[in-house]
Amino acid sequence: MLEVTVVIVPNHVLDMLKRVRALYFQDGRESRMLPSDAAHAPFRGTQSASSASITSLWTVLRGQGKASELSEALLADAETLANAEAYSGNIENMIGTVKVPVGVVGPLRVRGLHADGDFHLPLATTEAALVASSARGALAATRAGGISTAVLYEGVLRSPAFVFDSLLSAGRFVDWVVSNVEQLKKAAEATTSHGRLVSLEPVIDNNIAFLLCRFTTGEAAGQNMVTIATDALGKKAVAECPIKPQRWYVEGNFSGDKKATSLGTLTGRGRKVSASVVLPGEIVQKVLRTDIDAMLDYSRVAGLGALLSGQFGAQAHYANALAAFYIATGQDAACVAESAVGFTRLERREDGLFCSVTMPNILVGTVGGGTRLPSQHAALSLVGLEGPESAAALAEVTAALCLCGEISIVAAMAAGHFASAHHKLARKR
Amino acid sequence: MLEVTVVIVPNHVLDMLKRVRALYFQDGRESRMLPSDAAHAPFRGTQSASSASITSLWTVLRGQGKASELSEALLADAETLANAEAYSGNIENMIGTVKVPVGVVGPLRVRGLHADGDFHLPLATTEAALVASSARGALAATRAGGISTAVLYEGVLRSPAFVFDSLLSAGRFVDWVVSNVEQLKKAAEATTSHGRLVSLEPVIDNNIAFLLCRFTTGEAAGQNMVTIATDALGKKAVAECPIKPQRWYVEGNFSGDKKATSLGTLTGRGRKVSASVVLPGEIVQKVLRTDIDAMLDYSRVAGLGALLSGQFGAQAHYANALAAFYIATGQDAACVAESAVGFTRLERREDGLFCSVTMPNILVGTVGGGTRLPSQHAALSLVGLEGPESAAALAEVTAALCLCGEISIVAAMAAGHFASAHHKLARKR
Amino acid sequence: MLEVTVVIVPNHVLDMLKRVRALYFQDGRESRMLPSDAAHAPFRGTQSASSASITSLWTVLRGQGKASELSEALLADAETLANAEAYSGNIENMIGTVKVPVGVVGPLRVRGLHADGDFHLPLATTEAALVASSARGALAATRAGGISTAVLYEGVLRSPAFVFDSLLSAGRFVDWVVSNVEQLKKAAEATTSHGRLVSLEPVIDNNIAFLLCRFTTGEAAGQNMVTIATDALGKKAVAECPIKPQRWYVEGNFSGDKKATSLGTLTGRGRKVSASVVLPGEIVQKVLRTDIDAMLDYSRVAGLGALLSGQFGAQAHYANALAAFYIATGQDAACVAESAVGFTRLERREDGLFCSVTMPNILVGTVGGGTRLPSQHAALSLVGLEGPESAAALAEVTAALCLCGEISIVAAMAAGHFASAHHKLARKR
Amino acid sequence: MLEVTVVIVPNHVLDMLKRVRALYFQDGRESRMLPSDAAHAPFRGTQSASSASITSLWTVLRGQGKASELSEALLADAETLANAEAYSGNIENMIGTVKVPVGVVGPLRVRGLHADGDFHLPLATTEAALVASSARGALAATRAGGISTAVLYEGVLRSPAFVFDSLLSAGRFVDWVVSNVEQLKKAAEATTSHGRLVSLEPVIDNNIAFLLCRFTTGEAAGQNMVTIATDALGKKAVAECPIKPQRWYVEGNFSGDKKATSLGTLTGRGRKVSASVVLPGEIVQKVLRTDIDAMLDYSRVAGLGALLSGQFGAQAHYANALAAFYIATGQDAACVAESAVGFTRLERREDGLFCSVTMPNILVGTVGGGTRLPSQHAALSLVGLEGPESAAALAEVTAALCLCGEISIVAAMAAGHFASAHHKLARKR
Repeated sequence: MLEVTVVIVPNHVLDMLKRVRALYFQDGRESRMLPSDAAHAPFRGTQSASSASITSLWTVLRGQGKASELSEALLADAETLANAEAYSGNIENMIGTVKVPVGVVGPLRVRGLHADGDFHLPLATTEAALVASSARGALAATRAGGISTAVLYEGVLRSPAFVFDSLLSAGRFVDWVVSNVEQLKKAAEATTSHGRLVSLEPVIDNNIAFLLCRFTTGEAAGQNMVTIATDALGKKAVAECPIKPQRWYVEGNFSGDKKATSLGTLTGRGRKVSASVVLPGEIVQKVLRTDIDAMLDYSRVAGLGALLSGQFGAQAHYANALAAFYIATGQDAACVAESAVGFTRLERREDGLFCSVTMPNILVGTVGGGTRLPSQHAALSLVGLEGPESAAALAEVTAALCLCGEISIVAAMAAGHFASAHHKLARKR
Repeated sequence: MLEVTVVIVPNHVLDMLKRVRALYFQDGRESRMLPSDAAHAPFRGTQSASSASITSLWTVLRGQGKASELSEALLADAETLANAEAYSGNIENMIGTVKVPVGVVGPLRVRGLHADGDFHLPLATTEAALVASSARGALAATRAGGISTAVLYEGVLRSPAFVFDSLLSAGRFVDWVVSNVEQLKKAAEATTSHGRLVSLEPVIDNNIAFLLCRFTTGEAAGQNMVTIATDALGKKAVAECPIKPQRWYVEGNFSGDKKATSLGTLTGRGRKVSASVVLPGEIVQKVLRTDIDAMLDYSRVAGLGALLSGQFGAQAHYANALAAFYIATGQDAACVAESAVGFTRLERREDGLFCSVTMPNILVGTVGGGTRLPSQHAALSLVGLEGPESAAALAEVTAALCLCGEISIVAAMAAGHFASAHHKLARKR
Repeated sequence: MLEVTVVIVPNHVLDMLKRVRALYFQDGRESRMLPSDAAHAPFRGTQSASSASITSLWTVLRGQGKASELSEALLADAETLANAEAYSGNIENMIGTVKVPVGVVGPLRVRGLHADGDFHLPLATTEAALVASSARGALAATRAGGISTAVLYEGVLRSPAFVFDSLLSAGRFVDWVVSNVEQLKKAAEATTSHGRLVSLEPVIDNNIAFLLCRFTTGEAAGQNMVTIATDALGKKAVAECPIKPQRWYVEGNFSGDKKATSLGTLTGRGRKVSASVVLPGEIVQKVLRTDIDAMLDYSRVAGLGALLSGQFGAQAHYANALAAFYIATGQDAACVAESAVGFTRLERREDGLFCSVTMPNILVGTVGGGTRLPSQHAALSLVGLEGPESAAALAEVTAALCLCGEISIVAAMAAGHFASAHHKLARKR
Repeated sequence: MLEVTVVIVPNHVLDMLKRVRALYFQDGRESRMLPSDAAHAPFRGTQSASSASITSLWTVLRGQGKASELSEALLADAETLANAEAYSGNIENMIGTVKVPVGVVGPLRVRGLHADGDFHLPLATTEAALVASSARGALAATRAGGISTAVLYEGVLRSPAFVFDSLLSAGRFVDWVVSNVEQLKKAAEATTSHGRLVSLEPVIDNNIAFLLCRFTTGEAAGQNMVTIATDALGKKAVAECPIKPQRWYVEGNFSGDKKATSLGTLTGRGRKVSASVVLPGEIVQKVLRTDIDAMLDYSRVAGLGALLSGQFGAQAHYANALAAFYIATGQDAACVAESAVGFTRLERREDGLFCSVTMPNILVGTVGGGTRLPSQHAALSLVGLEGPESAAALAEVTAALCLCGEISIVAAMAAGHFASAHHKLARKR
């Protein structure tokens, strides 16, 4: 019978089932997936962070047998305790800090509409080869004269949803909103000194009306700013429109916040940036140890792979550089989920290999969020961007960095070095 | 003329163009997007990390005017310098560590096939309200008897690509591979003591053959493990198959590595975990300050919003919990890009509100990667999972944590608390 | 060895390979996939259709042994020959007509912004059960007072693409286009008496600029109309803008024409229509032979299935009604590919079961295309829509029809009748 | 105020709202979107078709003022009435036939694993230029020695869904299914003489288990066949498995039936076929009036457009050829929705321009469905495929035909002829 089973059920399913079965019938596990009303130890969280609050939480954790003194020492080290207050407002229930190693990539020459210069970029990662690989791409690009960049678009979306009794009411509400958009814009912008509502587009699904609100957010990434502004807009609409919704929500889960979406890929969220460079053949050979044709050959296969796998756009590994750069510079690392989509292109040009990335969802700021924390601020200051238009420049630098990552991985794949590079750098430890 | 322009070009485009134009014609920016062959300062990277190597890199950075002593002090603090060697093998060009604040969520009761107990989970984030929100969800779930979890699937994909002259050759190659899969499996598994090739599925696009290779990876997340094993498999196939490819690549960009893809959503990559809990009405009221109907109402709107935005699956913000938990416990934060997809469901049951998440792409390990670094290891040890099946248990805990986040945000939206909670926690600083 | 093969390669692959191998080594098939330069029989096509041209083509086909006199008689029947000239301008190389059986669904009461009345709708299909199933849905909806509908959006997209040497040039071109959009709009609209350019949105990917042009198209579906208008717009831009593209194309394959796309799902192409009805419980029982809870239960599962399979939106089988209605009424059947996406919702309301569809890509016209052909025109006249706003009304009727199909299939699934209904109606023959 | 409205709401929304408002306040339309309980004229449908039943339905329609004698004459012509019984079992409520003009494309040389010869293919369409364009592509391909094709995969999916009380029960059910798959396979295959269950893959989302069942279906497209077989499989499982579902459905809306899905794009549904040809430069020039570089240039832009629009795969207009060929040969035209996805590639080769399509979801049969109807059968017989493996050959011919369409449109775009060709052929009437 087993043989027949094998015939049509995929092996990885069989393999999993076999392991689960073995587990399931051991040590009474059969019943342990049910809810348990055993008492649970109380745990009082803290909103503000201080040396005392941190120590107090550890006392509880150690008291419950959950933690050792060594763990406490490593997370709640002296410096963290000394600076604990600095973290208030960015974290709750704080018990310390995790130390993520930072490597530097550079100089990376960026020739941008906003960013201009040779940059040294901090990457916080625990994955071997990532910094080395990015640095290789940066060297190639810089030797080729630098990466040309431009912000093409700006706008952080929120999508409040309003639920009515019928399509007719939803339509009449939208009509009112469009007719009174000026005062809604005022209400939204009254909550912020930097945010501006630059577009409002209604989308109706029968009795539910979503309003796609796009904001520019100054030098901040702006996720909280747009939430608060949208809340004011929605409240105003609900208070003043004669057509009342049954319910409304400040976010109808349509904006793409913290998610890879086709919406974000298509219309952008945050900043959309394009970055490109033309690499002469000799730089491809000397720095990347391969040649233009080999890179183009792989690029075609990778494009097909992207289509087959069903990505948004087509790229190799933006997420690697994004996560590392976001963590180092105090950006919201969860936004990697939405930022890591886009379009990488390689084409032959007369003077070499044209390489570009276009990334529609870069969410970065030079103020706000984690950028004000001590070590994050230090890392960000290494990039050297602040003041007006600095967030746009930072977005351009981010795209340029991702382009370096794409160039390097395509070259490694083309040359057959990918597996060996990871083997060498990761297994040395 | 402007008025007419306004008529059919979207305002956010006009707004952007106006700003770009202003910028473009100032301070000679017109020419600065071209490549520049100005000399760039040299920068010698380092593979290994030591107190000396870190200090030496800072000397260069400061010498080039890129960094201040304060920055150096904050990133390359005494403790980091003292432990620098610990980071070798996880980073190149190391210049210090960034300190990400860690908050704790718990106790979270997990009643899983693999995970069993009341957990305290470390979240590393700089975003206000994330820990508090997750903790609220955890409290509700724990009071309801805990979250039931199970790993449903396991397998990390690599997708080597082989390029031939024709469809016919690609087909004959695949025929050979299938007929000789036993020895290819042996070649792959000879490179690893923990990885096992559990499935191999060929996918042909005319002259290009991809082999979707799925591996189980023991207690490691296993990304490097599967690369090295696949490299051996590919080399073996190319060496022994009489039909020779023109080129081949260890990864054809089809595996979904570090990308949200429909492939990953559908077939899983890493571990697929489902987690659920039924919340009685009184817990919804007392802990979440709303009621079941209100949560179901929002859930329907959020499901529609997810569809409209074109997510993979439908969920609210897995990325928040994932990024914070991955960073704290030394997982690869770039994998947030692929992990943050899945299916959140809320349904009325006789005894309350059924809430579940099913997440097909959780990539976590209890060994390897960043898990061995000092503070990451300390954070991971707080979770208390190690030894056989610990990675599966960690994956279950991860899904349970994301479920807490979903419960909490749906409740906040349903109750109209979302904007105010963020306002309060983030703007207090 | 076979056993091991079985272990990790999916069986459907093995099964396929076994059959291909068997085939491949028979009757010299090994070589027959290569190109052959054997002479091929000449075949002169015809642009205009006439009795003579049709007969002449059949003479050639029969002369080459490709066709029988019976086939000729069935396709080139007397009536077709007599009316052959009527088909000129809709087909080339005409050899006759295929007769697609038409069933009627109705009366279907539509209470729409544009459509108003009890309609009898012709469906051309060869699939058993489709007409019967739609009719059942129509009966339920009509008894419930009719389907409420509204067009929410109108606009057919074309997306010309302009390729430049650099990002900078692409940006400057877009700047020019936006500044001169009034004259471009005039150039586009000069080619058509009905089309109007209502929106133009530039999208840049580095050196390539796409212009998303949205047109309203009067009572025609308008695909050719927008192509010609866009061609004029593009020519004007290229002629007058000082920044010259290297190349440009009237359609950059971005508009979603004849393809299911996330763009179309999100922003609509053609007309976006929402249609809804509330079915009282007794109608669900008497007409649909099930109950509201059962339909809601299935609806939740179907929504999950839609997400898992990765549809655009979530629906069951719009394509069935769409294809049949498009073919019967002379619409472009290829547009089923783009029209068959959207959002079906079922929810409990106080007074019964709320059912809605929102379809963003309905492409129909009451003039142009196949609507002028004899039998298509007869079928369309049965619907009874003509004159101003008739295309909008037809789009509303189309959505209402699709809603009937959704109601019926959900009921059949909920009641467990789906397989048996198909068995009974299809196997009777 | 209007000016401010203009600022941030897109013009196409404003334009639409203006028109809707005008309509809404005219002729009492305000109230007409509400349900109406006015009596509706009765209409008794018919399952079987006969001359009498058709005439009888027209009598009713004319009696209700819905139809003219002319319409009746055009749809219920003498020949249709004479052959009415032939349509029984394919349609209900039959009132006649719609005559779709058929043009012929050929000879198209196909050098396939299954198909072999120079084919003349009937296309039923009302869209000018489609036949001419396909014929041009066919001429180029045939002169180049023909199109090489192969079926790569076969399997029609059904996805029954089983709902349980908990994840645990769903898991235990799946365990039982996998352990008893042999008898389930027997139960499924007992319902059909041609269908075979070649794969069964369980997919769990918490308490819901889907079973992805793949069937080969002989020479039929097989949609009904797999429904009936799956119904038997599900009934058997539910009857014999000790773990009982709360509910189950023969189709959980996961199979991709009649929908474009990422599932179908990835794993195929129906037959997956690849087709390719290498066009020498002189054929590109003489037949297609452009050159290889120009086609490659456009191909890159079109690939980017496809990605930006969010297609499944990347292609230009498979739907055109598919719809026309499906309608002519009695296939299910609704399947265009799922068939019109795939991968078109153009690459430079030493000997010319490599062009390929890979289409994962071709659903065709040489028996069953509409293939047995008189004129459809005549059109199918023109293709000349019947008997064993004829459906596979037909699928290969279908892909080859779509490749001709892709070649022709890319050439037309590259040469700038696209708009003018449509202008000339469509506006001549």
